[in-house]
Amino acid sequence: MNTGEFRKAGYRVIDWIADYRENVAGHPVMAASAPGDIKAMLPASPPSAPEPFDAILADLDRIVLPGITTWQHPRFFGYFPSNALLSSVLGDCVSSGLGVIGLAWQSSPALTEVEEVICDWMRQMLGLSDAWSGVINDTASTSTLVALMCARERASGYSLAAGGLQAQDRPLIVYTTAHSHSSVEKAALLAGFGKANVRVVPHDGAYAMRADALGAMVQDDIANRRRPCAIVATSGTTTSTALDPIDRIAIVAKAHGLWLHVDAAMAGSAMILPECRSMWHGVEQADSLIVNAHKWLGAVFDCSIYFVRDPEHLVRVMSTNPSYLQTAADGRVKNYRDWGLPLGRRFRALKLWFLIREQGVEGLQARLRRDIDNAKWLAAEIAKSPDWKILAPVPLQTLCVRHAPAGIGGDRLDRHTLEWAARLNQSGEAYVTPALLDGRWMVRISIGAELTEREHVAQLWQLMRDALEP
Amino acid sequence: MNTGEFRKAGYRVIDWIADYRENVAGHPVMAASAPGDIKAMLPASPPSAPEPFDAILADLDRIVLPGITTWQHPRFFGYFPSNALLSSVLGDCVSSGLGVIGLAWQSSPALTEVEEVICDWMRQMLGLSDAWSGVINDTASTSTLVALMCARERASGYSLAAGGLQAQDRPLIVYTTAHSHSSVEKAALLAGFGKANVRVVPHDGAYAMRADALGAMVQDDIANRRRPCAIVATSGTTTSTALDPIDRIAIVAKAHGLWLHVDAAMAGSAMILPECRSMWHGVEQADSLIVNAHKWLGAVFDCSIYFVRDPEHLVRVMSTNPSYLQTAADGRVKNYRDWGLPLGRRFRALKLWFLIREQGVEGLQARLRRDIDNAKWLAAEIAKSPDWKILAPVPLQTLCVRHAPAGIGGDRLDRHTLEWAARLNQSGEAYVTPALLDGRWMVRISIGAELTEREHVAQLWQLMRDALEP
Repeated sequence: MNTGEFRKAGYRVIDWIADYRENVAGHPVMAASAPGDIKAMLPASPPSAPEPFDAILADLDRIVLPGITTWQHPRFFGYFPSNALLSSVLGDCVSSGLGVIGLAWQSSPALTEVEEVICDWMRQMLGLSDAWSGVINDTASTSTLVALMCARERASGYSLAAGGLQAQDRPLIVYTTAHSHSSVEKAALLAGFGKANVRVVPHDGAYAMRADALGAMVQDDIANRRRPCAIVATSGTTTSTALDPIDRIAIVAKAHGLWLHVDAAMAGSAMILPECRSMWHGVEQADSLIVNAHKWLGAVFDCSIYFVRDPEHLVRVMSTNPSYLQTAADGRVKNYRDWGLPLGRRFRALKLWFLIREQGVEGLQARLRRDIDNAKWLAAEIAKSPDWKILAPVPLQTLCVRHAPAGIGGDRLDRHTLEWAARLNQSGEAYVTPALLDGRWMVRISIGAELTEREHVAQLWQLMRDALEP
Repeated sequence: MNTGEFRKAGYRVIDWIADYRENVAGHPVMAASAPGDIKAMLPASPPSAPEPFDAILADLDRIVLPGITTWQHPRFFGYFPSNALLSSVLGDCVSSGLGVIGLAWQSSPALTEVEEVICDWMRQMLGLSDAWSGVINDTASTSTLVALMCARERASGYSLAAGGLQAQDRPLIVYTTAHSHSSVEKAALLAGFGKANVRVVPHDGAYAMRADALGAMVQDDIANRRRPCAIVATSGTTTSTALDPIDRIAIVAKAHGLWLHVDAAMAGSAMILPECRSMWHGVEQADSLIVNAHKWLGAVFDCSIYFVRDPEHLVRVMSTNPSYLQTAADGRVKNYRDWGLPLGRRFRALKLWFLIREQGVEGLQARLRRDIDNAKWLAAEIAKSPDWKILAPVPLQTLCVRHAPAGIGGDRLDRHTLEWAARLNQSGEAYVTPALLDGRWMVRISIGAELTEREHVAQLWQLMRDALEP
């Protein structure tokens, strides 16, 4: 494809995206595909000869679109909002078009320096002190893995340079709660700690970590010749946006020299609102922190910001310096290859730069405030309706809901919940996420798609009640 | 930005990319920026109010372009070709525009099933048997880390579900050579093995692993109550495209039950040419394999294919299954979240799908053959020139070169090499990568940018000779 062909085909791709977004409310929210539907439409083998671009574009409509779950739909209330605002999409297109790779600063100085500045913009927007340095990772899963590796190396005196984790005489222990994200246990297991050394700290009635219980568990491990290593606390858990008390957890961390990692992947976006910052009070005491700009804030996936207090330690754990990556600029610049797992990196900062400039901080703040108001409104409506229950505090935009008519409980209630949620999702009119809370199914409603206004939330509420009847 | 504004701005972005690519040969190959230049042009704080799109686009020219090292330049011979062909760019734009995230199959069925089929297309293109299953990761660094974690868990009987790596009584050992990529040692260290348990197997005169030496080291470790765990072999090393003898290494792996991981990140693309496949003879005996589609092949970064023989083992090591990700389709579909480190994933298969269809397999093959011919031509020219030396075999498109006039050696020769390479790179006319070989600097020339024709290789050869004089 030469540049002339690219211009023509590119315009059509832009129009295709615009058409999709314009008609997004006309698509079913959840794809109606059955397993294997898409695969069956694709040729089993690659084409030998080139195909015309028309054929490729036509297959987007014929094959891809029917298999798309519509994350930008105004009645998408599943998982978390992943807004991919259109200005951010364009920033990402520029990144693809430039096709540069960050290996060393010299392999594209702008890639590194724009990332540096934009991460610092984000730091300021979140109300964090200038003691933090940021880097863009793909996902929070990766950042949590990096955090636990860094914790492991600090606690073990850089065992990676010697006998590794397998040479430890006293097992290193990680603490979190049953409500932390699935990626936390996964990271601990992949970092080699072992499931037997991951402690599940009890939570309180609001699903937040109990700092007193944490303290007791740490004491117990020390008494039993184990070595407490890291705490992963969550500001806004996946299931219910529960807020672990960072300040009180930090006291335990400080007292025993534990690494404190704060996962604010979803709720961190809310910290661009000064009125929300009390929710992560104590965050300045943490060692590392994640905020995903690709969720509620509106950057196209993937764009997860990992903040650290001690970048030198991060670099000491992650760095490699082969001759073919050394340049004369080393020592005077950041080489982000030494800030995480992958060597190469996309120019990811562009999508965040475009987003922040096109929206302005005030524009982003106004949208998030709208969503929080919508969640409060829906919570109030549900709370005053017979048989419906709000099961957890609603500090931000996520609601945990159950329809629990008198006389139904236990497994029967679970079936009832899963049935009405499935009816709702299969209707294609709205999309919610069933999840377990205290061992029983409930429905999780996550508000915050860009197009979601009060009317769509009201429609959801009606659809939920309609879904009770088969 | 609404869809109307997006159409207008999007056309301009497409034109901006087309203009950049059209004039790519007019840019200096290596960015002329000094450290801090870009940062100094960016506002220290984010804008409160929205900015017009004009201002953003203007800053691409004013701030970003001067800091871009031109990877698509026809005289880019640095690192490795990362072609980002324009059809692939458009596939990536569609991915950004759709803004879907693969968490579970249901969160976008098309994302999962297109990836499944396109990875299988790649398998066929590379001449691999259908015993392999593929998944797209960001980079080879990540895939190698995943491979070593999987090796660790197989050798330790899934220690992650118990005491972890820290509970091992006999240390697990990893084997590789000094010529494997920097990400191999990094992965071993991050996976917790410890540097003391990474064995550097001697290489032969062509910089390939000596299978006999490997066998002896494995025996020695067993005799000393250590547990050999994994071998990382390379098909096409970074420095010189050396080819470890996979078939002979596989015999050692089989004899002692070691995991064999093959890193063909760069050279793997060449295996779409049947005449090259003898280079990785024995690959079917490996447990895991990486081929980066975002290098020579032409997909936009990031698009690294990780192939495994035993996906069930991969899933057993990587899986998490929290309630909020469970759906009715589970068990009948692939959930790629359980195939690697990150939970969420972009619709990365689109850029590869667009590329393969627009080029056709024959189109991709023709380009790679052109590049291999160009490398052979340059190697022959250099070999017949007085004082110039080709330092390693040239199986594909990478040359290791030194200008070594009589009477210059040791540190003085190193200075001479670094000086002419720096002059060449600073000229902006061409870009090469200095690297160490046998402890001495040489210049590495990697041929294979999409626009690089014989005339550009001839120009490089002239520029190299010109650069000898200050």
